[in-house]
Amino acid sequence: MRGFEQSEFEARTKRAQALMAQHDLAALLLTTEQEVRYFTGYLTRFWESPTRPWFLIVPASGKPVAVIPSIGAALMRQTWIDDIRTWSSPDLKDDGVTLLADTLNEIVPDGHIGTPDMHETHLRMPLKDMRRLSRKVKLASDFGIIRSLRMVKSDAEIAKIARACEIAGSAFARVSEIATEGVPLETVFRKFQMLCLEEGADWVPYVAGGADQGGYADVISPASEMPLSAGDVLMLDTGLVWDGYFSDFDRNWSIGPASQAVKDAHARLIEASDAAFEVARAGATAADLFHAMNDVLTRDAEGTDAGRLGHGLGMSLTEWPSLIPSDNSVLEPGMVLTLEPGISVGNKILVHEENIVITDSAPYFLSPRKTAELPEL
Amino acid sequence: MRGFEQSEFEARTKRAQALMAQHDLAALLLTTEQEVRYFTGYLTRFWESPTRPWFLIVPASGKPVAVIPSIGAALMRQTWIDDIRTWSSPDLKDDGVTLLADTLNEIVPDGHIGTPDMHETHLRMPLKDMRRLSRKVKLASDFGIIRSLRMVKSDAEIAKIARACEIAGSAFARVSEIATEGVPLETVFRKFQMLCLEEGADWVPYVAGGADQGGYADVISPASEMPLSAGDVLMLDTGLVWDGYFSDFDRNWSIGPASQAVKDAHARLIEASDAAFEVARAGATAADLFHAMNDVLTRDAEGTDAGRLGHGLGMSLTEWPSLIPSDNSVLEPGMVLTLEPGISVGNKILVHEENIVITDSAPYFLSPRKTAELPEL
Repeated sequence: MRGFEQSEFEARTKRAQALMAQHDLAALLLTTEQEVRYFTGYLTRFWESPTRPWFLIVPASGKPVAVIPSIGAALMRQTWIDDIRTWSSPDLKDDGVTLLADTLNEIVPDGHIGTPDMHETHLRMPLKDMRRLSRKVKLASDFGIIRSLRMVKSDAEIAKIARACEIAGSAFARVSEIATEGVPLETVFRKFQMLCLEEGADWVPYVAGGADQGGYADVISPASEMPLSAGDVLMLDTGLVWDGYFSDFDRNWSIGPASQAVKDAHARLIEASDAAFEVARAGATAADLFHAMNDVLTRDAEGTDAGRLGHGLGMSLTEWPSLIPSDNSVLEPGMVLTLEPGISVGNKILVHEENIVITDSAPYFLSPRKTAELPEL
Repeated sequence: MRGFEQSEFEARTKRAQALMAQHDLAALLLTTEQEVRYFTGYLTRFWESPTRPWFLIVPASGKPVAVIPSIGAALMRQTWIDDIRTWSSPDLKDDGVTLLADTLNEIVPDGHIGTPDMHETHLRMPLKDMRRLSRKVKLASDFGIIRSLRMVKSDAEIAKIARACEIAGSAFARVSEIATEGVPLETVFRKFQMLCLEEGADWVPYVAGGADQGGYADVISPASEMPLSAGDVLMLDTGLVWDGYFSDFDRNWSIGPASQAVKDAHARLIEASDAAFEVARAGATAADLFHAMNDVLTRDAEGTDAGRLGHGLGMSLTEWPSLIPSDNSVLEPGMVLTLEPGISVGNKILVHEENIVITDSAPYFLSPRKTAELPEL
């Protein structure tokens, strides 16, 4: 099923309002695609255009209020939101700031207005407009409310991530159709995106990877025109979207037979993600998962420069928490995580990634669980 | 050719530095994908991950300095940038802020640091971190420097936009292969993205459109499962990317024969974009193009809620200027613009879009110029 029942948005709003009361916030002010969509279901690729600001107000009680460009009104009217205020944007003199300030002052005549200001957030409006707004209303932190809400997914959200992962799994299963010795990596990337779409992705915001002798140099470069050749390890990583939710996992292949060192490194990555899977229980911490993987990876070997070994997954390709030693976020049922161990092999690296769900008992895989052997193309 | 000669980045940096001198800025601080890429050529889809902040400093003289997460170092070393400082991100206590402040204080011990703060910009870092940084360095406006640089494209940039438009044109020319009566709009969207990739797009960040009887309700909704039926007008709009630069134009088709009202409305849209094309000369203003189109559109007819009739195009799907009555930006050779007239037909709308280049004489089309007749599928 696409979209959500209205009860989903009601529950999200009520949870936000309970947390707002704890922090003495009279409203939340939200500006990014994911923040606005989380409370409204407003789904459009139009956010690709950076021109116009969009605002959503979550008051202390009642439904959220949208303050948006008129071009978005027809679509917003299809959501559960009733109070939709619009202006003709872009307006070079006043791009919604006065309308937003007036609306806030009407709905929340007094009190602090929380806006996400911590790690992995940004304010999607011009700084000058924020300063102008600050003179008219009392802006404050959201105290991590959005983080704590979005980090734990509902069953309906998990079902969407599961569908995205299923589609990605089907695309990965067909990589032998598009990647063999002699095919330029650029072509592999392009055709892999086509496979993702053919298998049912709505769109493919993220494809990365690499291919080089015995590993790859990094995992974020665009594809080169270099043809795949025997001895290469090919890695493809995709964040595809189904109904607004992401998959994010990768797979590795050897072009022709792999060296023993490469085979061993790949097996070590699987051993690492399996080790994290074993400890991925409610009550454990993000740091525990890091250490479970890192202990395996650093046994006579070296890690990579990635900075972390996994992260949250949902409406964004990456979200809280981070699997790093200093992230002591306690795992809760409903969290969706990536396990993303990386290892050095000579001057190259190998990275593996799986997607799992934390439950009140054992976790389970959303990505088709990979075994130790490295497949050959 | 992919990428740019180093001279391109040198020229961009020198132009920025000349404008910085005028505004007494000791440096620019940049945080978004396009801003960083403009001065470095740093091209990766990894920005899809909102987790990590990235910083680029443009000093008053010399090359830019990158302050970035370690995961990005290998790729940044492939650019012309020499001074690359990294930290292991994410760091929950200090995600690059101290390293950035120390670097700024070393390179720019005194003076104001300009950061984009006006229309169509945002700061891609947590607000809390910005406040922390503000206490260590003197942040100021960029005085629109980034806008004025990016708004006028070099020949090498225009060549990339032209290639993106050529690819989109080839995909649009094949729409009859994927869209006929009975095919759900959702399937048309998915297969159209595949056509864009097959024709050579690196990726397809934006596809929008609509299909309904005698027009569509809006142009930003995701595709429904509704099958195309006789009397529908189908519109597809794409922002596809080639080597980091966008196309952004649309096409309309009638499913079966169109009504006279729909045919007339489509012809009116073409008349409007042609009228703007005629006045699109260096020295005219963005507002002049708006009025050229609006005069045609409002002759016994009504416009739409879009808020503007076109915009700049380049590294972003939409960028400055806006074709609205209040945007008096003077057109210069090298500007790439979309002409995007919209018209109401009963309770539906039709929108048409072309991409053009301003030169020192007549403009020219990057999209394959559309004629008045509405094609039938």
